Amino acid sequence: MRYLPGRHFLQLPGPTNCPLPVLQAMAMPTIDHRGPAFGELGLEVLAGIKTIFKTEQPVVIYPASGTGAWEAALVNTLSPGDHILMYETGHFATLWRAIAVRHGLQPEFISSDWRSGADAAAIGARLAEDKTHQIKAVAVVHNETSTGVLSNIAAVRKAIDEARHPALLLVDTVSSLGSADYRHDEWGVDVTVSGSQKGLMLPPGASFNAVSQKALAATKNARLPRAFWDWNEIIAVNKTGYWPYTPNTNLLQGLKVALGLLHEEGLDNVFARHQRAAEATRRCVQHWGLEIQCRVAAEYSPILTGVRMPEGFSADKLRAVILERSNMSLGSGLSKLADKIFRIGHVGDFNDIMVVGTLAGVEMGLKVVGVPHRAGGVQVAMDYLAGGA
Amino acid sequence: MRYLPGRHFLQLPGPTNCPLPVLQAMAMPTIDHRGPAFGELGLEVLAGIKTIFKTEQPVVIYPASGTGAWEAALVNTLSPGDHILMYETGHFATLWRAIAVRHGLQPEFISSDWRSGADAAAIGARLAEDKTHQIKAVAVVHNETSTGVLSNIAAVRKAIDEARHPALLLVDTVSSLGSADYRHDEWGVDVTVSGSQKGLMLPPGASFNAVSQKALAATKNARLPRAFWDWNEIIAVNKTGYWPYTPNTNLLQGLKVALGLLHEEGLDNVFARHQRAAEATRRCVQHWGLEIQCRVAAEYSPILTGVRMPEGFSADKLRAVILERSNMSLGSGLSKLADKIFRIGHVGDFNDIMVVGTLAGVEMGLKVVGVPHRAGGVQVAMDYLAGGA
Amino acid sequence: MRYLPGRHFLQLPGPTNCPLPVLQAMAMPTIDHRGPAFGELGLEVLAGIKTIFKTEQPVVIYPASGTGAWEAALVNTLSPGDHILMYETGHFATLWRAIAVRHGLQPEFISSDWRSGADAAAIGARLAEDKTHQIKAVAVVHNETSTGVLSNIAAVRKAIDEARHPALLLVDTVSSLGSADYRHDEWGVDVTVSGSQKGLMLPPGASFNAVSQKALAATKNARLPRAFWDWNEIIAVNKTGYWPYTPNTNLLQGLKVALGLLHEEGLDNVFARHQRAAEATRRCVQHWGLEIQCRVAAEYSPILTGVRMPEGFSADKLRAVILERSNMSLGSGLSKLADKIFRIGHVGDFNDIMVVGTLAGVEMGLKVVGVPHRAGGVQVAMDYLAGGA
Amino acid sequence: MRYLPGRHFLQLPGPTNCPLPVLQAMAMPTIDHRGPAFGELGLEVLAGIKTIFKTEQPVVIYPASGTGAWEAALVNTLSPGDHILMYETGHFATLWRAIAVRHGLQPEFISSDWRSGADAAAIGARLAEDKTHQIKAVAVVHNETSTGVLSNIAAVRKAIDEARHPALLLVDTVSSLGSADYRHDEWGVDVTVSGSQKGLMLPPGASFNAVSQKALAATKNARLPRAFWDWNEIIAVNKTGYWPYTPNTNLLQGLKVALGLLHEEGLDNVFARHQRAAEATRRCVQHWGLEIQCRVAAEYSPILTGVRMPEGFSADKLRAVILERSNMSLGSGLSKLADKIFRIGHVGDFNDIMVVGTLAGVEMGLKVVGVPHRAGGVQVAMDYLAGGA
Repeated sequence: MRYLPGRHFLQLPGPTNCPLPVLQAMAMPTIDHRGPAFGELGLEVLAGIKTIFKTEQPVVIYPASGTGAWEAALVNTLSPGDHILMYETGHFATLWRAIAVRHGLQPEFISSDWRSGADAAAIGARLAEDKTHQIKAVAVVHNETSTGVLSNIAAVRKAIDEARHPALLLVDTVSSLGSADYRHDEWGVDVTVSGSQKGLMLPPGASFNAVSQKALAATKNARLPRAFWDWNEIIAVNKTGYWPYTPNTNLLQGLKVALGLLHEEGLDNVFARHQRAAEATRRCVQHWGLEIQCRVAAEYSPILTGVRMPEGFSADKLRAVILERSNMSLGSGLSKLADKIFRIGHVGDFNDIMVVGTLAGVEMGLKVVGVPHRAGGVQVAMDYLAGGA
Repeated sequence: MRYLPGRHFLQLPGPTNCPLPVLQAMAMPTIDHRGPAFGELGLEVLAGIKTIFKTEQPVVIYPASGTGAWEAALVNTLSPGDHILMYETGHFATLWRAIAVRHGLQPEFISSDWRSGADAAAIGARLAEDKTHQIKAVAVVHNETSTGVLSNIAAVRKAIDEARHPALLLVDTVSSLGSADYRHDEWGVDVTVSGSQKGLMLPPGASFNAVSQKALAATKNARLPRAFWDWNEIIAVNKTGYWPYTPNTNLLQGLKVALGLLHEEGLDNVFARHQRAAEATRRCVQHWGLEIQCRVAAEYSPILTGVRMPEGFSADKLRAVILERSNMSLGSGLSKLADKIFRIGHVGDFNDIMVVGTLAGVEMGLKVVGVPHRAGGVQVAMDYLAGGA
Repeated sequence: MRYLPGRHFLQLPGPTNCPLPVLQAMAMPTIDHRGPAFGELGLEVLAGIKTIFKTEQPVVIYPASGTGAWEAALVNTLSPGDHILMYETGHFATLWRAIAVRHGLQPEFISSDWRSGADAAAIGARLAEDKTHQIKAVAVVHNETSTGVLSNIAAVRKAIDEARHPALLLVDTVSSLGSADYRHDEWGVDVTVSGSQKGLMLPPGASFNAVSQKALAATKNARLPRAFWDWNEIIAVNKTGYWPYTPNTNLLQGLKVALGLLHEEGLDNVFARHQRAAEATRRCVQHWGLEIQCRVAAEYSPILTGVRMPEGFSADKLRAVILERSNMSLGSGLSKLADKIFRIGHVGDFNDIMVVGTLAGVEMGLKVVGVPHRAGGVQVAMDYLAGGA
Repeated sequence: MRYLPGRHFLQLPGPTNCPLPVLQAMAMPTIDHRGPAFGELGLEVLAGIKTIFKTEQPVVIYPASGTGAWEAALVNTLSPGDHILMYETGHFATLWRAIAVRHGLQPEFISSDWRSGADAAAIGARLAEDKTHQIKAVAVVHNETSTGVLSNIAAVRKAIDEARHPALLLVDTVSSLGSADYRHDEWGVDVTVSGSQKGLMLPPGASFNAVSQKALAATKNARLPRAFWDWNEIIAVNKTGYWPYTPNTNLLQGLKVALGLLHEEGLDNVFARHQRAAEATRRCVQHWGLEIQCRVAAEYSPILTGVRMPEGFSADKLRAVILERSNMSLGSGLSKLADKIFRIGHVGDFNDIMVVGTLAGVEMGLKVVGVPHRAGGVQVAMDYLAGGA
């Protein structure tokens, strides 16, 4: 691996740049996962993580990366053959659907063009039709990481309620938790799925299920086989700060520090910082004359901005040039968007001049590769940032 | 968490003391899990890990702790209702069985007294009876972490062969891999399950399935639902050094370093170092007049030594005193052995004087607590170690 | 200390941003400074550091920060009352002179306006007058850190030679070594003084004297008292890789890594990277309409750019705003330049987008504070950087 | 450098094993040594270090290793030709004397056999003779690191007072500060010299002068040249938390953490822990039948134990074998004790089982090398440690 001078800019929509105190906490020696010091740590992070989900319900922490937490949300609540209403916000919604299929569920997929968020009205309409309550769950991605679109979860909740439908509401916040406002309890979410490597500013390796009482009740009748992902045993043992099997102790050491940093800054300040970075990024992209993947302004993501390449230009070529010249990683287009868009992450631990450096890396890349654009986007971003709070 | 001076002695049979270069590698910034540097890393650790399993077959690395890899071995190869012959070496064999039950398999459990290894003859006899080949797999724990007993896997293989039975052979090496000689290919194992936090000298968080061609073929007809644990997609994507979902990048950074350290020392030297430490520990325990949990000398574990407390003395009380006075963590008795034994780990990254310090912490604890014993065990261990190579 | 999100930009002309592998090497446990492992390390860094000074003569490494190495250059070579011809390039030249005074030397100080480098002709003229060779040494700062001016050492050497004067040539490269081309042997320098915390990308704490044979010979008659700084004993003991007193072992562990990084990139590439950053910075500053402290284009520093504030504006106020808003530290004006200039460091471990981020932080600060300037400097810098190699 | 498994035991009387939180703090990025965060850090460590010296007077922190602080104590207070009464406790007292000679002072050296501490009566007698007060300072080493002897500083103070002599009292605590009780103010010490790499649990690189008002007054008339070591400028600038030249910022980051750890444990507990380790070590050595270098029981060092080899055996051979077999570094005999003694450090960050491991490494080494000794010393040490508090 060749040495590139300077700090790498990891401007993916996750994994994100981790603060050094978090990385150092992970590099402290592993402790006895059954000893008293671990018990204290366990209780602290289990309590602390609830403040980020804004819930007073249990949050299950898995020693597994995010994909596992998707699976967990399904196998704990559903039975073979169950219908689940899912919304095709993009690639990650599609992957979640694939997991449902593999587990013998019957997903109904409301399709979209990958450029807007979940349509609460469409969800409500489908549920209203479902008089026999065949649909057992509604699954929506809060922030679709493949496109940069943020769905309105409160609206989905309202649609379910208005349809007077008993389906569980399952929400993926893998890339939004800790970076965008999210309210598990207030929005009546039954299972919130999340991961460590985005707004929580940790490496990949831990994932989460925040679980409502209704979801817990559903486990009683859920007949999909489960062991590793089973909530009940974990929640029972968690009461004393431990896990039924070996937790990833060192990541939890890092989580404790990350939670402290988020609260020291203040969650509202964290969210505002992400909104500012997102707005600066969009103004820059729009100045360049490039198209933002998200079509709906109200649904712009504070986490990342998907940028569409002009016809005839390769997003991956651009990203490769930027990596080589500017030591910066950008997100690629996924699945049907492969090579057609690139994704600028503005999530995790960053400040204004990291945002400008990021946009500068892109603008210089556009120039070097010869992608038609109006120069000066970085300046526009700076004008906005310097004018802001 | 109160500060205790000096280095903590993490003398569990896992997690183990991690070398600082491994911890530091994990504390390097997270890299793009889809970028070229990660691809190089991926290929390197995927190739390197094979040398530890002694296999030329694929090794699947999960971003999940060890319990998950048990589940993976089952769901990739078996179907609901399948019989599986398991051997009750101790607590961990029992946990593995519980996972099989939860997935709707029908384990046949050859019971034991938790003081000896898997009886290859008994396994062979049962298979010989199974004329219809109802039994689809034999599952054995190589090193039973709850007792300190090492089973003879080559003998189990031989027994299966002699019974001319087509069952798959599944072996758990969570606590032995990298510390005791193990030969996935030579011993004809179909699925070897392992974890990161023992002989591989990493924190918990990664786990492994080494997979034979016969096991891979079995996935075709295996009807347990699987997604996160599915081998085929992972193995396909691994060919270029990547994973189908986000791997735990930072642990893999550490794995690369850990593999380097193991090979720099030489695997045979690593194994010999563990054998020496185990022999020193047993001589010490025997001098004390305490009983070793493993009854069969040929099956003593090089990884840990389970020590039985005399009647009327609490192993947990002893461990608590040792933790407080000597800043050392020992393994507790699990399940039916709770409070009856303690377990001394001699696994991972250690040297002679760490072994002596460990035994001294125990001997001083015995004295303080008033457990009857013959003083001088540490001296006996030292005599052995000083006389050795 | 309040938490500020994102990476701090330490854009001083030193200390500089250290690469993480360097910081990690310093965080490895301290080793026995008299043991065999240290001896290997000592020989390696003593040989390695010569490649940066471009010398085959001894380089003395002090466990002391840079100011000490100034003192060392004087006390090893001179006697009370000796004349020394020094050139007032700026604050640091003035500090060096003060040390000479304190040691009872008689500095002759060729004064300047702190906006240009050492005038080789003036030095030559003074030496030509000195028929009795009362002047024992000429002392010049290669890169004057307080102003951003690089002096032409080869020209000074030539002037001394043409004056056929036997004075020693002492050169301060504290802020240039490892970032600007420097040739101790080829330029006939007798003592080169340097420090760890600039181009060598280490924290402060080590400093250097590269020493010619002529300088070593001068120690025989030099009568200033010296013990800690004495070259001869250090050089003698260094032959086996050790030091006569406790060296700062952990910084040397970092130095080994830093030397490796510099050579992996290639010194010429390192120098070119600094020149590019400096040129980008100057174009930006000039676009803003602010004045560069260095008046002479041929003497622009590749290490830092001093920027003069318009009348009536406080440089320190600007720096405070930038620190608060952009989490970036800039250099202050020193001594008579206090509050009148600020200094942008472009030295050490950085890449193009860190340079742009730095300049953006300044431009946004100028706007917020209301310093009159022409917006768009960052864009100009980007145009240059994107057009470059 | 070959990899040796397990933790290295750095059982020198300094540098010592550093706690990982201290090493990590040093690995946090360098900060602006003139910025507000550094000012806070500076004030904190300058106040904190006083609690370890037990002084309310200024403590000067040098960015230089300990030898420099010896020089500083002399050049700030004395003038060429001044007499200084020094006591030959061992190698380090002799080195300090050599520095005095190099600076043109006239040390009077009370000689000893390197097996006992400073004789306060002899010092008092010499001072009483000195009617003209030619002697300007008395210099004593508190803990002589080359032998393992602790001198009684309060007694020396009393002897000076009883002789009604105005000489300054200079004391070297390089290896005792933070590990043995020390009282700069109560004992009326004028300059206390110390270093970072022993009881303060830091790497080498910082050193200290605690300075009485009388010592400060002495600077007015002291005519040895000084610049880097000059107290007055440092103390003046320290008032706001800064230094007149670049301090070693990262070591100070570590110092802050180290001070916190010492106070969390409690200084009296720290001292008692060292006394316990020292007593255990001596009992072990005496059981072996080896001779302790310190002849006077009241002067045994809590920091280290010097052990004399039997005639005909090489201490360095023994140390080499121990390093190779046990991955442990011991202190060598210095100067006239070279190869005749080895030194066991029990200083810094350690606990009971590290002490036992250390002694075991030595005892196993004695056996392997064939040094005549009575086996069982480690057991004796354990008996003592297990019986203690």
